[in-house]
Amino acid sequence: MTTDLIMDFRSLAKLISKIENNRAGFEDDLMSLYKENSETLTIGITGPPGAGKSSLTDRIIKEYRNLGKTVGVVAVDPSSPFSGGAILGDRIRMSDHASDPGVFIRSMGSRGSLGGLAPATIDVLNLMKSVGFDVLIVETVGVGQSEIDVMSIADTVLLVLVPGLGDDIQALKAGIMEIADIFVVNKADKDGKEKLLAEINMIINLNKHRFLWVPPVVETIATENQGIGRLMDSIADRNSWLKESGTDVKKDKIINQFKHKAMDRIGYEIMNLLNSKGIIEDWTQGIIDGRTNPYSAMHELDKNLEIIWKKDSK
Amino acid sequence: MTTDLIMDFRSLAKLISKIENNRAGFEDDLMSLYKENSETLTIGITGPPGAGKSSLTDRIIKEYRNLGKTVGVVAVDPSSPFSGGAILGDRIRMSDHASDPGVFIRSMGSRGSLGGLAPATIDVLNLMKSVGFDVLIVETVGVGQSEIDVMSIADTVLLVLVPGLGDDIQALKAGIMEIADIFVVNKADKDGKEKLLAEINMIINLNKHRFLWVPPVVETIATENQGIGRLMDSIADRNSWLKESGTDVKKDKIINQFKHKAMDRIGYEIMNLLNSKGIIEDWTQGIIDGRTNPYSAMHELDKNLEIIWKKDSK
Repeated sequence: MTTDLIMDFRSLAKLISKIENNRAGFEDDLMSLYKENSETLTIGITGPPGAGKSSLTDRIIKEYRNLGKTVGVVAVDPSSPFSGGAILGDRIRMSDHASDPGVFIRSMGSRGSLGGLAPATIDVLNLMKSVGFDVLIVETVGVGQSEIDVMSIADTVLLVLVPGLGDDIQALKAGIMEIADIFVVNKADKDGKEKLLAEINMIINLNKHRFLWVPPVVETIATENQGIGRLMDSIADRNSWLKESGTDVKKDKIINQFKHKAMDRIGYEIMNLLNSKGIIEDWTQGIIDGRTNPYSAMHELDKNLEIIWKKDSK
Repeated sequence: MTTDLIMDFRSLAKLISKIENNRAGFEDDLMSLYKENSETLTIGITGPPGAGKSSLTDRIIKEYRNLGKTVGVVAVDPSSPFSGGAILGDRIRMSDHASDPGVFIRSMGSRGSLGGLAPATIDVLNLMKSVGFDVLIVETVGVGQSEIDVMSIADTVLLVLVPGLGDDIQALKAGIMEIADIFVVNKADKDGKEKLLAEINMIINLNKHRFLWVPPVVETIATENQGIGRLMDSIADRNSWLKESGTDVKKDKIINQFKHKAMDRIGYEIMNLLNSKGIIEDWTQGIIDGRTNPYSAMHELDKNLEIIWKKDSK
């Protein structure tokens, strides 16, 4: 079944820009719109560059559109810590969907150097959930901490790998391993597939005792539409499992959201406080002059910064 | 010239573990050891998986060893947000250097889910600087925000790219662009080199007005030791430029360090405060029950959390 969207795409795009630019009032908007819409399925798609994530996203959109579902897509860019700009302009292979009133696609960049991507992305995903999309897809390029943070709020995370990426894939596995709900071996016609499959299976077997959900491994060739049916089945299986497994998984996701939002907002506040008093400038110059060092400065921070939960005093 | 190290490798390894595990007293150790050692050259090496960063690191170590310099290497893993374990064990192609008393190699994983990699890595690099290595190399796998954070403290950042990585390289450029001090096109015998070089040069030209230092582009085939001489020259050029260009570059790096350290430590403190009062548990359950939502909870956080700089009241 398809739910109606409570907002047209133009208004949605404007609200997302408001979130991205951290403009006054965006949180009030979110507060009044927020709906814990358990019917929305959020799919995260991550993996190293060159794995074919965009082609795969494109295929998944088509599958859900064939089922009559509305789809919202957020493509996250590791963009500049300085300019804050996003540049997914040239990745619009997804433009097939541009005229489809059931598909909304948005790319997101970083929101300044302090907050990082995760908090703003989480806000946008919450907004799109509340608007009532049947399916949300969040795609990230990269394999670092912020990708892990973003993925931690998705119901189902597809880790897209590709044969022959070299030894680095070894190094990636541990970090990304535990956020992968489904392993996708894309470009499965390339050399090195058997080696990659063996590595993935070894990792899964080694960690089996820790899993609540054992991640399946699906082979695809997204550009030729191969294996997409099996992938959709795996996503459906995962979704059923989530519904049956109760609220613990959900709770963890909400706690993760809190951490990112709270850190983001308090971080800004404290840096503003320290900047406005010239403390950062003073410490920095002090370190260059040899008057102090970073660890003494942190000690001073500990001594002088007091954090109070005011409700206690009532 | 080579400076003497003030600590043997065993003691150094123990201190690093203390930092990684956030064990009591590590900051006091750092405070007493800290030395703003301007003679240490810190080189960051980053880029997407499969670019050949480890081979390149290996070659650079050899070059500096031939000059009689001591070299410390920190290899940063995007490791598990849950277990906190690092797994660079199988990447020890660098084991050539294992018996060399002038080379210290250490891999680092994440320090719990809150702090992220950047703060601990910065501490370890500060420690190794104070110990007196001539050259420090920090290698990260990935292209996300935490890689940008780690790289922001290196004097010279090599962005290692490789021909034929696909369209995603486009998406990477903006984020990583501004941290690249030297572009390395490795595996320069592969198809697609001209295209990649053209793309890099276009980006450099478009941004020329913003650069203080215009990043050179160096072609290498690390596994065959080709282009390494030119790369070493570029690193030396960059180093000379840094020395002449005064303290502004340095100041920015110190401010970056502060942000990460301060956010890290205050983040832990506040999450502990909220956890100890059962506030997070209460909010989480409230969201699941529909009593509240994340934005109302943040509003409550704003209202009730007070941050005071105590020195003001003296």
